[in-house]
Amino acid sequence: MTSLTRRYPFSASHRLHTERLGPEENWRVFGKCNNPYGHGHNYFLEVTVAGEPDARTGAVLPLPRFEEIVKERVVDVLDHQHLNLDTIQFRDVNPSVENIARVIWGMLEQHLGPARLHTVRVWETPKTWAEYRTA
Amino acid sequence: MTSLTRRYPFSASHRLHTERLGPEENWRVFGKCNNPYGHGHNYFLEVTVAGEPDARTGAVLPLPRFEEIVKERVVDVLDHQHLNLDTIQFRDVNPSVENIARVIWGMLEQHLGPARLHTVRVWETPKTWAEYRTA
Amino acid sequence: MTSLTRRYPFSASHRLHTERLGPEENWRVFGKCNNPYGHGHNYFLEVTVAGEPDARTGAVLPLPRFEEIVKERVVDVLDHQHLNLDTIQFRDVNPSVENIARVIWGMLEQHLGPARLHTVRVWETPKTWAEYRTA
Amino acid sequence: MTSLTRRYPFSASHRLHTERLGPEENWRVFGKCNNPYGHGHNYFLEVTVAGEPDARTGAVLPLPRFEEIVKERVVDVLDHQHLNLDTIQFRDVNPSVENIARVIWGMLEQHLGPARLHTVRVWETPKTWAEYRTA
Amino acid sequence: MTSLTRRYPFSASHRLHTERLGPEENWRVFGKCNNPYGHGHNYFLEVTVAGEPDARTGAVLPLPRFEEIVKERVVDVLDHQHLNLDTIQFRDVNPSVENIARVIWGMLEQHLGPARLHTVRVWETPKTWAEYRTA
Amino acid sequence: MTSLTRRYPFSASHRLHTERLGPEENWRVFGKCNNPYGHGHNYFLEVTVAGEPDARTGAVLPLPRFEEIVKERVVDVLDHQHLNLDTIQFRDVNPSVENIARVIWGMLEQHLGPARLHTVRVWETPKTWAEYRTA
Repeated sequence: MTSLTRRYPFSASHRLHTERLGPEENWRVFGKCNNPYGHGHNYFLEVTVAGEPDARTGAVLPLPRFEEIVKERVVDVLDHQHLNLDTIQFRDVNPSVENIARVIWGMLEQHLGPARLHTVRVWETPKTWAEYRTA
Repeated sequence: MTSLTRRYPFSASHRLHTERLGPEENWRVFGKCNNPYGHGHNYFLEVTVAGEPDARTGAVLPLPRFEEIVKERVVDVLDHQHLNLDTIQFRDVNPSVENIARVIWGMLEQHLGPARLHTVRVWETPKTWAEYRTA
Repeated sequence: MTSLTRRYPFSASHRLHTERLGPEENWRVFGKCNNPYGHGHNYFLEVTVAGEPDARTGAVLPLPRFEEIVKERVVDVLDHQHLNLDTIQFRDVNPSVENIARVIWGMLEQHLGPARLHTVRVWETPKTWAEYRTA
Repeated sequence: MTSLTRRYPFSASHRLHTERLGPEENWRVFGKCNNPYGHGHNYFLEVTVAGEPDARTGAVLPLPRFEEIVKERVVDVLDHQHLNLDTIQFRDVNPSVENIARVIWGMLEQHLGPARLHTVRVWETPKTWAEYRTA
Repeated sequence: MTSLTRRYPFSASHRLHTERLGPEENWRVFGKCNNPYGHGHNYFLEVTVAGEPDARTGAVLPLPRFEEIVKERVVDVLDHQHLNLDTIQFRDVNPSVENIARVIWGMLEQHLGPARLHTVRVWETPKTWAEYRTA
Repeated sequence: MTSLTRRYPFSASHRLHTERLGPEENWRVFGKCNNPYGHGHNYFLEVTVAGEPDARTGAVLPLPRFEEIVKERVVDVLDHQHLNLDTIQFRDVNPSVENIARVIWGMLEQHLGPARLHTVRVWETPKTWAEYRTA
């Protein structure tokens, strides 16, 4: 199996909060991540695509196309936004790092052919990251 | 000269915006950093203190004390906050990375004795950082 | 599959040495890692848990709980210790980086519910790491 | 499953170019990576071997042997070379990062016993890497 | 003193070689860095500018302008080039990392006003870098 | 001013402890760093030399010589040692990171001509480092 991974930075704000819990419960579960105005991160998105390298170019997916797709589909949508307030993707989805990975999977899945999407990894900090992949 | 540096992470939101400019001018100068709800970063603060190592301990400043002072004076104040909305330090100061370094210098300067504060460096992203030091 | 990984630092000493080999053989196999007083590393432990994100919180495992479990079960036990001399885990187990990963798996496996432990990765240096996972 | 990974740097030049395409097409596909004299990278090779740790030493593969094999089989062959012009491996293979990973797999596969080669990962830049592994 | 630093990647080939020495002497001094077709690196350029932050914007130099100047003056000139063969800057200057830093200083010095150029740092590898600054 | 910096890793154990204080006081000052068998770190030593680049080679100090001197004078002496028990340099000097930087300065100062030693920086962890330089 051959795969290619590309790392993309984006900076955003988020607030961990769910309407299904009351204020005290939100605070108990999320702590300072529940602060009302939100806080932010330098997220790093790592997208892995798998496939057979093209016989002539040696590429699973040409890098300029890879760049363009992820920029258009994800980075331009999330970068420098408040995820809860500025994006429709997280209007009803708590922007935990796990959910950010799952949402980005959905934003990219149909658009990376002929390669297939293999893994979406999102780093929230240099110490914490989530992955989403199909089993 | 002997110095000791310690790195501290904090995550926060900010918005680059100044009341002294109109909306179009704010956008022209700050671009997407002017988005109304703000965006965020994983900031890294590096504090350098200088001095003579203690003859017995070999320390310019004992690490546990260094930790405690910076945590209490800076990290607990700025971490997981929206700098413009949640902190008095940036109520009237645009939270550019240069200004964040200068403000933190003022928050620490009197509190690190017997060592003296030598440099405050703030990383906004892995590609951009500012320093403040006395000439 | 959704997973969440968290990175934990700990500093420790170790000595690569086995009673099943004589002194010359120990030296031949381990080289300077067999020096009698040991040497040390800044280890980084990366624990990956997998599971279904909670519908309300979006978390596979809430970060504060994740932190607390790994701190109590592993970091507090190994940090700032001489692995061979100070810990029961490595009294009869050579503290190679592969064995450290396996031992930590055992220390954590039962304690991360409702998430399940997916991978334990241990970095001995920025150039060398081991992983343990169930097939 | 226990695995051990080791990171090896090497610096090399390459040019993305294929005789199967004309000059304009080469430029369209590869852009500035098609510049005639080539350009270069600090590549990082990460080799993962899997196996059962030796009962006495705790090692899947002793590090000194691991070092020696990869140095002799790969690093000494590719380091400080122009991949297209100086190496037989890439005389007829476009040195895309995907192909570099596949070629290195072939250079190592037979030589790491009793461990078995599990993954070859090659970083072309801190933002781009490829992996080759058997399914 | 307030300063702002920005990091810029570029990839290039170079060959360490001087016409003032014979072939054996070139090899003796530069070793494999003297290989005829050159080899390459992922260089990282860090440009530090100093000055007084603007009272309204808080910036020593607005980031978009900083980006644009360094891109136009340096990155577009050196990126994906063979320094010895493709650039006039290194036609008669050996592209050691020290000389690359000095040359870039000259390429930027007049163009960063109202900030003043403070330091040019060039990383050749993650283990080696050079700095040029005025005393 | 032109300078060249090179990074060298070494792994060692140490114990923070001074005979001039009693056991309780040692514990109060150093905490777990006072554990009797010591603990360890992956230290990174960064040596900066300054000078005028040689007109022919462009080097402040040729890298192979730089490597050889620091390896022979420092790395071979400290690597894989217990600093307190195995080295004469720290027999009577508490191996704080500040003191390690000062001691290494003394081990290198006379040996780097024609370049002059400018800074010795020692990283104890990715969060803590000390520097020694002449004013």
